[in-house]
Amino acid sequence: MKKINIDRLKSSLMELAQIGKDPRGGITRLAYSDEYYRGAQLVKDLMEDAGLKVEVDAVGNVLGRKDGCTDRIILVGSHTDTVENGGPFDGSLGVMGAIEAMKTLDEEGISLNHTVIVANWAEEEGNVIKGLIGSGSFVGEIDKDIPAIEEKLRSHGITPEDIKKARCDELENINCYLELHIEQGGVLDNTGTDIGVVSSIVGEDRYLVTIYGKENHAGTTPMVYRDDALIKAARLMLNLNSQCRKIDDTMVCTVGWIKAFPGEQNIIPGKVQMTVEMRSVNEESIKALADYMKAWCSGEFSEIQLTLSQNPVKMSSKCMNAVSEAADELGLSRKVMQSGAGHDAMMIANVIENTGMIFAPSVGGVSHCPEEWTEWKDIENSVNVLLNTILKLDKQL
Amino acid sequence: MKKINIDRLKSSLMELAQIGKDPRGGITRLAYSDEYYRGAQLVKDLMEDAGLKVEVDAVGNVLGRKDGCTDRIILVGSHTDTVENGGPFDGSLGVMGAIEAMKTLDEEGISLNHTVIVANWAEEEGNVIKGLIGSGSFVGEIDKDIPAIEEKLRSHGITPEDIKKARCDELENINCYLELHIEQGGVLDNTGTDIGVVSSIVGEDRYLVTIYGKENHAGTTPMVYRDDALIKAARLMLNLNSQCRKIDDTMVCTVGWIKAFPGEQNIIPGKVQMTVEMRSVNEESIKALADYMKAWCSGEFSEIQLTLSQNPVKMSSKCMNAVSEAADELGLSRKVMQSGAGHDAMMIANVIENTGMIFAPSVGGVSHCPEEWTEWKDIENSVNVLLNTILKLDKQL
Repeated sequence: MKKINIDRLKSSLMELAQIGKDPRGGITRLAYSDEYYRGAQLVKDLMEDAGLKVEVDAVGNVLGRKDGCTDRIILVGSHTDTVENGGPFDGSLGVMGAIEAMKTLDEEGISLNHTVIVANWAEEEGNVIKGLIGSGSFVGEIDKDIPAIEEKLRSHGITPEDIKKARCDELENINCYLELHIEQGGVLDNTGTDIGVVSSIVGEDRYLVTIYGKENHAGTTPMVYRDDALIKAARLMLNLNSQCRKIDDTMVCTVGWIKAFPGEQNIIPGKVQMTVEMRSVNEESIKALADYMKAWCSGEFSEIQLTLSQNPVKMSSKCMNAVSEAADELGLSRKVMQSGAGHDAMMIANVIENTGMIFAPSVGGVSHCPEEWTEWKDIENSVNVLLNTILKLDKQL
Repeated sequence: MKKINIDRLKSSLMELAQIGKDPRGGITRLAYSDEYYRGAQLVKDLMEDAGLKVEVDAVGNVLGRKDGCTDRIILVGSHTDTVENGGPFDGSLGVMGAIEAMKTLDEEGISLNHTVIVANWAEEEGNVIKGLIGSGSFVGEIDKDIPAIEEKLRSHGITPEDIKKARCDELENINCYLELHIEQGGVLDNTGTDIGVVSSIVGEDRYLVTIYGKENHAGTTPMVYRDDALIKAARLMLNLNSQCRKIDDTMVCTVGWIKAFPGEQNIIPGKVQMTVEMRSVNEESIKALADYMKAWCSGEFSEIQLTLSQNPVKMSSKCMNAVSEAADELGLSRKVMQSGAGHDAMMIANVIENTGMIFAPSVGGVSHCPEEWTEWKDIENSVNVLLNTILKLDKQL
């Protein structure tokens, strides 16, 4: 089994983590910001050092290419943009890990059948324009969204033509896409497992729910005369919470934002708005919980607005098998698991059938915050799995 | 039975309602604003027209005095400040009604044993500095609050010395305080009753409750690993709601404001803050519900902060009897009831034992909004009750 150089990888990850340091303790490297471009420049330099030919496409994806014996392509990537005050590894591990894998092959003089493209996808997080802009443009899946985001695109110097230009003109040659990412959940950490073999990425419905009651004086309105919108919202939250667990034990449902109107301590709320997010690898589960919510709300004066809907995506068994074999041969424990977060792989799987993901453990299951961390041992293990999975797929595909 | 002139009263109430008209449809006449002083000037003019000697004290109370045969005093009043975008009668009915009663006596040449002081209390609502500043200064009950509100007082040109100067120097001569007010609840309207004879004003505890959970990714954190602060807050809200009904069926409990942190749709809330307000005429009931909440919260990582605590206040039986007799003799239906809202009478009852309140029906039980309304027939009835209650107390006390 081939092994990467963890000291070199550590140094490049830590150099990247210096770019966009946030006074709150984390890292802020929003897509298309100065910090983002400084990070992209480091990525470019490291790619070149690993023997890759680099180009930056029209939407800011940094693409490093190593030609193989054939024009069939293995695509590997992730992203280096972060959320506000995020952590050092979300996305960055996948990009820096892929570059380190290529550097290792280059050092050892190993040439592959496949051409390898390492991608640093732009605007994965979606805090600036919309999530997955870079990978979505590359596979030609963003065109339908342009009208809604054109203004934001242009404010960052990107035109609708750029989105079209960024579509890869050799998509049919891409044999597979691989992405290494931190788990962002606590499954690997809680179970002491080294590697996650991702079987699917959850689908997601997001709703804005408005529940009406009757605004009234909190002192002079007896309990029996009340129609309190917040009490009704509390009932809905608890019902969704228990119903979600009944439908599907891999499903999640979250109310992350709520607002009572008028929001005065001495006025009974006449209106409540809240977000409801449902995720599952099973489309039917999401539909079942959404139907439950709609039925519940139909008994009340309320409004339900669907704000986002994404179907679940399955990873290919070829990729899952290659990742599993690599982990086994490296003597690492592994667990087949779902991804509860969205990733570039989700977008790319729409077009590239053989898509796979590798997860590294997140300490405490936290991410998108300064406390986000993965132990260096796990960083090393996961990039070794990435490297050997590439080698396996190069032979198998 | 003496009767007031409803056309004259209607005209003065409507003239006052023109001052501070809000584009949102209601009236904004916040204490110490230009609109407030324009309203106070109208009150002054009408008092003088009713034969009262007028003075404005150091905190902006407008006091109109009609000397009687003795120096024993009947104090009558309410307020003309409003909440933001409030209605035409909250407070104003009591002030304009008292002036109309005095004008009627003046026209009919009736002189009383008691000296009557009609008071237009400043800053009842508490949106500007703190509630009940005017009536509280008059009875010398604000001194202890000065340190906390001195800055706000000074920003409206009021010094701590003004608060002291506004204390009435003949408090021991005041035999009773009477206040006519709209009910602000739906009890009279729902039961088709003409007049409310107020037996007590509820006490009130206000809390700011903070409940902690564990902030986490809404996609990658399975339901079984969650510690969702908003789900716990929803449970507390529903428990308080049902417990309140069990303790005391005249008690109310309201969560009017809530905020989830960080408040993102894709993050499990790690912290929730909410206001909890409890009101009852029984001090023990408030204590019982507060104890229940504290016990519930002690099982969670939480903080409870008491932000306001007011004891319930009983109205005097002498005043209640006089109001009841007046209503009966006028052929009006009446109902002994509590006040769920705070009033100047609550403050004054700390010092003047004989305090009483008369309620007029609120259409639909709403107040503090443009829709606040009381039918003219009910305005007339309630001011007739006020006038005849003054005449009765003048003889009885």
